[in-house]
Amino acid sequence: MSSLKAMSPILLNCVGTVADHSENSEPEVPFKNPQIHVKNPHLDTMEEDILYHFNLGTKTHNLPEMFGDIKFVCVGGSANRMKSFAQFIHQELALPGNMDNITDICEGTDRYSMYKVGPVLSISHGMGVPSISIMLHELIKLLHHARCIDFVLFRIGTSGGVGLEPGTVVVTDKAVDCFFRNQFEQVVLGKVITRSTELDVGVSKELLQCSSELDDVPTVIGNTMCTSDFYEGQGRLDGALCSFSTEDKLEYLRKAYNTGVRNIEMESTVFAAMCCACGIKAAVVCVTLLNRFDGDQISTPQDVLVEYQQRPQVLVAHFIKKRLGLIV
Amino acid sequence: MSSLKAMSPILLNCVGTVADHSENSEPEVPFKNPQIHVKNPHLDTMEEDILYHFNLGTKTHNLPEMFGDIKFVCVGGSANRMKSFAQFIHQELALPGNMDNITDICEGTDRYSMYKVGPVLSISHGMGVPSISIMLHELIKLLHHARCIDFVLFRIGTSGGVGLEPGTVVVTDKAVDCFFRNQFEQVVLGKVITRSTELDVGVSKELLQCSSELDDVPTVIGNTMCTSDFYEGQGRLDGALCSFSTEDKLEYLRKAYNTGVRNIEMESTVFAAMCCACGIKAAVVCVTLLNRFDGDQISTPQDVLVEYQQRPQVLVAHFIKKRLGLIV
Repeated sequence: MSSLKAMSPILLNCVGTVADHSENSEPEVPFKNPQIHVKNPHLDTMEEDILYHFNLGTKTHNLPEMFGDIKFVCVGGSANRMKSFAQFIHQELALPGNMDNITDICEGTDRYSMYKVGPVLSISHGMGVPSISIMLHELIKLLHHARCIDFVLFRIGTSGGVGLEPGTVVVTDKAVDCFFRNQFEQVVLGKVITRSTELDVGVSKELLQCSSELDDVPTVIGNTMCTSDFYEGQGRLDGALCSFSTEDKLEYLRKAYNTGVRNIEMESTVFAAMCCACGIKAAVVCVTLLNRFDGDQISTPQDVLVEYQQRPQVLVAHFIKKRLGLIV
Repeated sequence: MSSLKAMSPILLNCVGTVADHSENSEPEVPFKNPQIHVKNPHLDTMEEDILYHFNLGTKTHNLPEMFGDIKFVCVGGSANRMKSFAQFIHQELALPGNMDNITDICEGTDRYSMYKVGPVLSISHGMGVPSISIMLHELIKLLHHARCIDFVLFRIGTSGGVGLEPGTVVVTDKAVDCFFRNQFEQVVLGKVITRSTELDVGVSKELLQCSSELDDVPTVIGNTMCTSDFYEGQGRLDGALCSFSTEDKLEYLRKAYNTGVRNIEMESTVFAAMCCACGIKAAVVCVTLLNRFDGDQISTPQDVLVEYQQRPQVLVAHFIKKRLGLIV
């Protein structure tokens, strides 16, 4: 495993492909350094690797055969939504077989759901940084064991908008924490280390180009703030606990807006940090369900919310079809 | 809502019932101050409260009618496990009707699952602090809107053991963070506030008494460490990223053990902090799936794991039956 040679012993910061990707490169050009950088020398010494939360393992499953052809991985919070996305991609890629018969690869566990449709893997990650981080550790090892190369990883999710019309899709420029810092703090053995949350500029640009080719998918690029809490952490006034005023809330949102934040969700920093550390081309694409300057509760009718949630899916499907040469 | 009078404007620390509960009080004595302390003055001004992640609301559902008789709330990570628990309780309480027909009250969403069986509510919370905190905000508001009184809240979960035989149940004495501190840091509008993670001593003692009356549920009391990450945060050597040695890992686990930590999971601090802030009697009861001094991977056969996971359920069911007078 040559990828281990580049391992930095303490700070697993951004290396390799992401930084190398020139802003001027053509999206159609294949990546020059497509290999995933699993940064753990202990993995080599393990006879078996059980991916516990996926109910998969290197001894019980032929991972290269099951996953070796993956070129696009899409992750999102809700299991139902990621199943719908897999069915949608099945239809969009005009693949053979009945999309209703799609089965959950992780069906022995209910921690995550996983669907494979041609070269596309669709996985749910639950809500919040810890939940997505467990999934990412096991996903990155899965892709490593399966010897996948040249793939792109997308988070397609929902978010609260900051100064945007509800239904706007935000492609993340910088993933920032609740202090508006472009970094992720990871505790390792009781010590805090800081990781870069750099995302792939090329993929973001390609997504924006895709959005310009689509009707009904209003898209902007902006910073995405990731919080550990949906209520107090995002300045909501409607939680079980709230000790601040409407004016305090609005002041915080205005500060966020002024630093470039356009939406708020709960997974982007660790997603960006882990992808960056492992040299994975990645993007975050979230639709806004409401404008937080106007309120906190999500009271939009269900059918409208469903249509909003399809927008990141439509955008990423367009990206995938272009990459596969199905759209010129 | 008299509970609002006691609200502290900034630090929503432990008040009321928990601190008042004498260590010498008899478990059988009903709580003196059973009311839930929702600490948010804004809730009074809302015409409607949509509990978005439960797909419930104060205008669309009659919450007092649906939930007013709840006396025990049990939460755990996995939706399947919380359904099994509901079915188990149905059987244990010898309730009428077919336990296989139990329906998910949150079936319009896949964020959480919720089952009601007589006076017992069983809810899933996903993995990690952010996921359980969203659920707790909405659960606490639900119980408040439903005017529930005199209830006990349990987290029944799985964990990694520290120096314990796999299968041991740990009733949490102190919920501590990854620095072994008995506190939870919550970010509110970009400012860090610290909350107490005090749990109810009376309920813990009652649980230990229950365990002594059961065969096959080996139970200890100890501190529970809550981390934000399953791999690096818990000193696992088998994640996608690992920059430390086996000796580093063991040193961290030994330090944890020496401060009284007996198991590691990912939700206890925020669970304890929110229950404490809202004056809710609460306990954390987790089984250990492995001894972390011996390894990181969960390689125990599935049937053994299933039996382990039933142990906290059996213990809490015994507690509930005693409280209901079904066991003398």
